[in-house]
Amino acid sequence: MQNEFENTPPQRIYLDHNATTPLSSSLKEKWMELFELWGNPSSIHASSRPGKKHLRESRQKFAEFLGCSPLEIIFNSGASEGNNTILKSVWLERGLDRSEIMISQIEHPSVMKSAEYLKSLGAVLKLIPVSRDGALDLNFVRAEISNRTALISVMIANNETGTVFPIQELSQIAHAHGALMHSDCVQMPGKMKLDFNSLGVDYATFSAHKFYALKGTGIVFAKKSAPWIPLIHGGGQERSRRGGTENILGIASLGIVLDSFGQADRKILEMTRLRDLMEKMILEKIPRVTVTAQKSPRLSNTSSLIIDDADGETMLMSLDLKGFSVSTGAACSSGNPEPSPVLLALGLTRAEAQHSLRISLGWGTDESQIQKFVSTLTEVVEKLRALKKEEKQYAIS
Amino acid sequence: MQNEFENTPPQRIYLDHNATTPLSSSLKEKWMELFELWGNPSSIHASSRPGKKHLRESRQKFAEFLGCSPLEIIFNSGASEGNNTILKSVWLERGLDRSEIMISQIEHPSVMKSAEYLKSLGAVLKLIPVSRDGALDLNFVRAEISNRTALISVMIANNETGTVFPIQELSQIAHAHGALMHSDCVQMPGKMKLDFNSLGVDYATFSAHKFYALKGTGIVFAKKSAPWIPLIHGGGQERSRRGGTENILGIASLGIVLDSFGQADRKILEMTRLRDLMEKMILEKIPRVTVTAQKSPRLSNTSSLIIDDADGETMLMSLDLKGFSVSTGAACSSGNPEPSPVLLALGLTRAEAQHSLRISLGWGTDESQIQKFVSTLTEVVEKLRALKKEEKQYAIS
Repeated sequence: MQNEFENTPPQRIYLDHNATTPLSSSLKEKWMELFELWGNPSSIHASSRPGKKHLRESRQKFAEFLGCSPLEIIFNSGASEGNNTILKSVWLERGLDRSEIMISQIEHPSVMKSAEYLKSLGAVLKLIPVSRDGALDLNFVRAEISNRTALISVMIANNETGTVFPIQELSQIAHAHGALMHSDCVQMPGKMKLDFNSLGVDYATFSAHKFYALKGTGIVFAKKSAPWIPLIHGGGQERSRRGGTENILGIASLGIVLDSFGQADRKILEMTRLRDLMEKMILEKIPRVTVTAQKSPRLSNTSSLIIDDADGETMLMSLDLKGFSVSTGAACSSGNPEPSPVLLALGLTRAEAQHSLRISLGWGTDESQIQKFVSTLTEVVEKLRALKKEEKQYAIS
Repeated sequence: MQNEFENTPPQRIYLDHNATTPLSSSLKEKWMELFELWGNPSSIHASSRPGKKHLRESRQKFAEFLGCSPLEIIFNSGASEGNNTILKSVWLERGLDRSEIMISQIEHPSVMKSAEYLKSLGAVLKLIPVSRDGALDLNFVRAEISNRTALISVMIANNETGTVFPIQELSQIAHAHGALMHSDCVQMPGKMKLDFNSLGVDYATFSAHKFYALKGTGIVFAKKSAPWIPLIHGGGQERSRRGGTENILGIASLGIVLDSFGQADRKILEMTRLRDLMEKMILEKIPRVTVTAQKSPRLSNTSSLIIDDADGETMLMSLDLKGFSVSTGAACSSGNPEPSPVLLALGLTRAEAQHSLRISLGWGTDESQIQKFVSTLTEVVEKLRALKKEEKQYAIS
């Protein structure tokens, strides 16, 4: 039987929702209708109207989801574009008088690499340390912020460990010094219950494919007062804040998925229950496992494990062959043999980071999937450890 | 009956293919399969594989279409992003030593506004004039180019008038002075027969939704030797030239549509025949009509008319009510009451530009549609002119 919420193949168990999510079943129901959405919404004849309608409705629905004005919503191609636009906008707008940018050590590459690029142009980059339990060093922020700071950019929750950061406090510190506050909120929708307005940010970035809609659609929240220089200059789309013909199919998919967000709170509670159950079972069944930042505030759906004497990549591949999709870290650095920079930044050793596994649940995850996963992981780890023991004995004999 | 090639509604006749195209019927056949393409291609488990395959295949097919290496193809969100990336890359890379950018007076807003933005940062912007028959002033280029010129950027064909520009000559002039050559080739695929390599450009930009594939997918051709600074820094996607999770659905749609490009030459010939027939019929049936740049080299599918005593917007809306989609100019400036800047740049008066109508044919256009369109346009123009005459008489009496 196909999964009730997500279109995962029936034979596989997908536990990598922080990389991307399967598409919502509600999209499947409307899939043939979506095929008709090809008109250019900037045209003024009938072919443009369905697209215009979806553009307006999706903007309205996402604004309601955040509790902001539709004028504060800008559609683009994804959170990487959003993050680049914001960091570069602030740098270009504030210039050398306020040339400092403060970001956490464990930001997404689209923030980290943008900041490093701005550093190459003359910006001063300050990296906020994080501790092994995932906490952000607020004292560093308080000590280092000044009237030369243009922007603080910290993600709402880390995609690898699930740890949640104190954005509200950061906004207060930033604003007290005349700096702007941005939060990469890609991991927020559908994974944490939150009053968005309480964050007090000037900018936030989102990606539709992280919550059951299509790839190629991002959303930026930008306060009306916040500086904005288009990354993509062009036609008058998005009130001249982002040129280019709109990806109407993706934007429509966002609106359709948001219609099922009435169940978000319930889904978040259920993912927390299943994640906690999974961790409890794993810690009982498999010796020498540590859950990274288990005691910290975390996303409802994420579990980052360090499993001694079991190589992360090997576990991932063994699980893949048995029908389970998990990851060792962020998808965008997969295939890279280096251990996760995020885990290293937390203070884990290279060896620890190489024994990590990330499991991220979704709205379609159920208890039987978790049971099957824990049982298979237990087998896989036992087998890998036995092999390792044999290798060691062979090396000695 | 639904159109054989395009999914246009049976009751409407779509003649605005330069704004965007309907989706190819070949996509409709695979539409349910495309729904399954949600995996993140950067992941290393099974869910990523279908996406990885499409990414590789679409890149290979587009490279074959152009006759270049797949390594010279970069996927992004659309031609506006491509144009911005190239202009800004060259500016950032070449700096103040080579700070001149030369573009035509009638470039797309994503080139024009990017160039104006660079001008605000210190670049010297030179606008190449175009004449009323659509010809580009090559003497201006030869006189103004120097070793301070970083880039010439000229579109291969204008989206409003269809006039084709001498890109090969421009490349030669640019390269003789150590400058780079870019051409916005959005209007090329499926509309003109061309040996792409003969253009000799360093960069070219394309948008999938202009040739029967999905919105939200652009393609850049960039020579290996050409400077490149990512507009979107981030993960290692596109060999670190463009960060962000790939819009796999859009990229897959591109590959599927390219499979039908075996018929491109035949379709181009047929569109030319129908466009010429249409213009002949209109000039016979409707007095006081001029075809802009009729004697110049033009795209196969485009006709730009000036119809005396008939307001462009009013014609467009009357035709829309009768089931025809056409435009007065570029879609991205639609709704703007100002006359088309492109037509004004050609030297048309404001009054002439306000009486313009653009008709752009597609692979699904057939002779019966053209017959119906000409007959309806004739009625519409007669009615508008009669009304205008009445108004004048009323004003006098």
